[in-house]
Amino acid sequence: MASQALIKDFEDLLGKENVFSSEADLASYSYDSAVLPAVMPSLVVRPTSAEQLSQCVTKLYDNGIPMTVRGSGTNLSGGTIPDKSDTVVILTTGLNRILEINSDDLYAVVEPGVITAQFAAEVAKKNLFYPPDPGSQAVSTLGGNIAENAGGLRGLKYGVTKDYLMGIEFFDATGAVVKSGSRTVKCVTGYNLAGLMIQSEGTLGVISQAVLKLVPPPKASRACMAVFSNVQDAAQAVAGIIAAHVLPCTLEFLDNNTIVRVDDFTKAGLPREAGAILLVEVDGHPAQVEDDAAAVEKVLKANGATAVHVPKDAAEKFKLWEARRMALPVLARARPTTVLEDATVPRSQIPAMMQAVNDIAAKYKVEVGTFGHAGDGNLHPTFLCDKRDVEEFRRVEEAIDEMFDTAIKLKGTLSGEHGIGTAKAKWMEKETSRGTILFSQRMRRALDPKGLLNPTKLVGI
Amino acid sequence: MASQALIKDFEDLLGKENVFSSEADLASYSYDSAVLPAVMPSLVVRPTSAEQLSQCVTKLYDNGIPMTVRGSGTNLSGGTIPDKSDTVVILTTGLNRILEINSDDLYAVVEPGVITAQFAAEVAKKNLFYPPDPGSQAVSTLGGNIAENAGGLRGLKYGVTKDYLMGIEFFDATGAVVKSGSRTVKCVTGYNLAGLMIQSEGTLGVISQAVLKLVPPPKASRACMAVFSNVQDAAQAVAGIIAAHVLPCTLEFLDNNTIVRVDDFTKAGLPREAGAILLVEVDGHPAQVEDDAAAVEKVLKANGATAVHVPKDAAEKFKLWEARRMALPVLARARPTTVLEDATVPRSQIPAMMQAVNDIAAKYKVEVGTFGHAGDGNLHPTFLCDKRDVEEFRRVEEAIDEMFDTAIKLKGTLSGEHGIGTAKAKWMEKETSRGTILFSQRMRRALDPKGLLNPTKLVGI
Repeated sequence: MASQALIKDFEDLLGKENVFSSEADLASYSYDSAVLPAVMPSLVVRPTSAEQLSQCVTKLYDNGIPMTVRGSGTNLSGGTIPDKSDTVVILTTGLNRILEINSDDLYAVVEPGVITAQFAAEVAKKNLFYPPDPGSQAVSTLGGNIAENAGGLRGLKYGVTKDYLMGIEFFDATGAVVKSGSRTVKCVTGYNLAGLMIQSEGTLGVISQAVLKLVPPPKASRACMAVFSNVQDAAQAVAGIIAAHVLPCTLEFLDNNTIVRVDDFTKAGLPREAGAILLVEVDGHPAQVEDDAAAVEKVLKANGATAVHVPKDAAEKFKLWEARRMALPVLARARPTTVLEDATVPRSQIPAMMQAVNDIAAKYKVEVGTFGHAGDGNLHPTFLCDKRDVEEFRRVEEAIDEMFDTAIKLKGTLSGEHGIGTAKAKWMEKETSRGTILFSQRMRRALDPKGLLNPTKLVGI
Repeated sequence: MASQALIKDFEDLLGKENVFSSEADLASYSYDSAVLPAVMPSLVVRPTSAEQLSQCVTKLYDNGIPMTVRGSGTNLSGGTIPDKSDTVVILTTGLNRILEINSDDLYAVVEPGVITAQFAAEVAKKNLFYPPDPGSQAVSTLGGNIAENAGGLRGLKYGVTKDYLMGIEFFDATGAVVKSGSRTVKCVTGYNLAGLMIQSEGTLGVISQAVLKLVPPPKASRACMAVFSNVQDAAQAVAGIIAAHVLPCTLEFLDNNTIVRVDDFTKAGLPREAGAILLVEVDGHPAQVEDDAAAVEKVLKANGATAVHVPKDAAEKFKLWEARRMALPVLARARPTTVLEDATVPRSQIPAMMQAVNDIAAKYKVEVGTFGHAGDGNLHPTFLCDKRDVEEFRRVEEAIDEMFDTAIKLKGTLSGEHGIGTAKAKWMEKETSRGTILFSQRMRRALDPKGLLNPTKLVGI
């Protein structure tokens, strides 16, 4: 618990209603969506303006108190779990204004606490499109999306959060304002600090404002569900679609375990006997959609799809996509502990990676449900277990170790979109190099000399 | 001149044929394409493998000798001019291999010295597309493009070099290897150091390898030239095209001064009486091209285009585009000194910016030819003068000062694609903040403690 003096200070600054110090409140901010031990913060504060945010950072810096910035806490690698018992959590949910949506110049200016899906909806009202759609979009914040470089279902064609960040304002560890990027399409004024802040997991500064790129919405789209008797056929079809130079906006994969569990829960009418299904959507100009849909269907059938089902209307399509979005929450109900991974490989390596995941699960006798963004090589093998069963959890950890080794061997990466946090730090050097860790630490120590910004996350400090 | 011992060391490492120390050689590497004083380096070295490159960096680090990395020296802000008389220039032209073009996964792996246009041509042979096309693409290197975040004519629709850098390997100041990014579409393993290296102008590390994203080529395209009696109509048409939600792949502007001078030189048959012309190209699916071309023509005519000319064949189109590419070299012949600027504004502010450029030119009685990437708000007002005429050059400098003030007031930026180098460092704080400069310097000093990597460039060290 923070000192009464500090609590009083923050109450004077932010108002009593924005300072939380009860045991129950602190417990609420002691964990995120990663499978990691909870750590109680000493205080939770909720600034409601950029100026207040800066003052919070300065006050914590002056007092040498570590800070963890938190949006909605949907983080999957522990980035929003407090580091130590004296950590103060800074909530960004009070900074939730969309400051500008500019239709002429195709950008928006937002505060960090704006909810992703609400932002996308406001943008859509102006007949524009903000593509990044992380699984948690209904509750996640744009600031969190930037700090984690959130991906989503549309990454293959439209890219990830990184590809939409045009400019940023943030406070450094001392509370001084730093600006990078612009409202212009091109900007090379100084270092690309906007690019550096992307996926920096709250370790280099505290985001106060972002300029996000918007695009004209596609004029048409078409979706389908392809049913496969086995995982390998589905994986080959994914590689085949890309090789045919079609870039679907969505190309999602669910394996049998996921299909059955999701269907049990949602009654979406999924093909329960299928070894795997692919959900594919193409969008763009109506004529291009026509051509792409035909090309996709051809590849799907050539790779052994036993059925290609086109939803009869938007409601049916929504139901299928919702089933995909339910994959994680439904799998998470199956067993006490859910370890959701996001090892990612070049797209052509999806068949090899799927084979490896299943072989590894069999070898270590662990239950895996796999779904994910097959089109960009970003699978989510989800390990269902019980952390209290020490022996089982050890097997899960060994399986994950081997899975990462395989991803790297296939020229892939540890983490496509969930981040390093504390969950994956130990594997980082394997993918990069000793020099990369040292370079990152040197940079970080210079920018945060007291080691107060989420200090145990990423490469440590 | 470097010591004989150092020369001998490098000759042993790289072979005599890759170490240059004659007066004539040193003079060749004392300047780049910016209007700035030449500085002779003490030695020029040309490694031909990544291992040699690392050894060069380590040797210079150990000896405390500053280094400037140079590709083809097309830099427009002084980034490749040596800092001091003891600087050693590291040429990347010996590292010119395309290591992989992967059609299945849509990426390529390259060394830094590969020539941009040669790379694009190799990629095209595999029926793929690398969009960034800086004006200097016929000679510029990919490493230089990354270090400067080079733009080009296709930025509006396809983005700039930043948008194509998936992964990077570089040597830090000591010669240790650092890796960031991946061959995968998504990667959040550690800091986005690839994003940080973009536009870092050789101040944070020495690039040895890059993974670049490729895309399927557009199936069709259509180009036109629109003629306007005055600049304002052309500028309004640009804003109108974007507002109509058409994203042309090219949307270029030339003012009368540029038109006449280019036509004199190229005999391209440009409309010499026109106040301005726009060169527009749309690409994509054939049906989309059809629709977009019609929409563009409608907007052009609604904004006062006196003629919209569609080239009758590829040869005629090439001639028009070549005329645009000749704008800079032709303007540069007009007077002894050419100061090419790249202030950039949000696209809707193009009319205001064009008006301001012309008003400023009249106020300071300086000659300006303006052309550029109107579609992304990135104009190139080009000041034609004689630097030896001190009074005239002072007026040019005052005009540029006022132009930058205007760009920032219009929520634009100092530099869309040319970089800061030493040419624009003094304006940086005006666009960003004191905190931004300090943050950048702290970061830089930590990563280059001896201050050897292009030390006077960008924010200084």
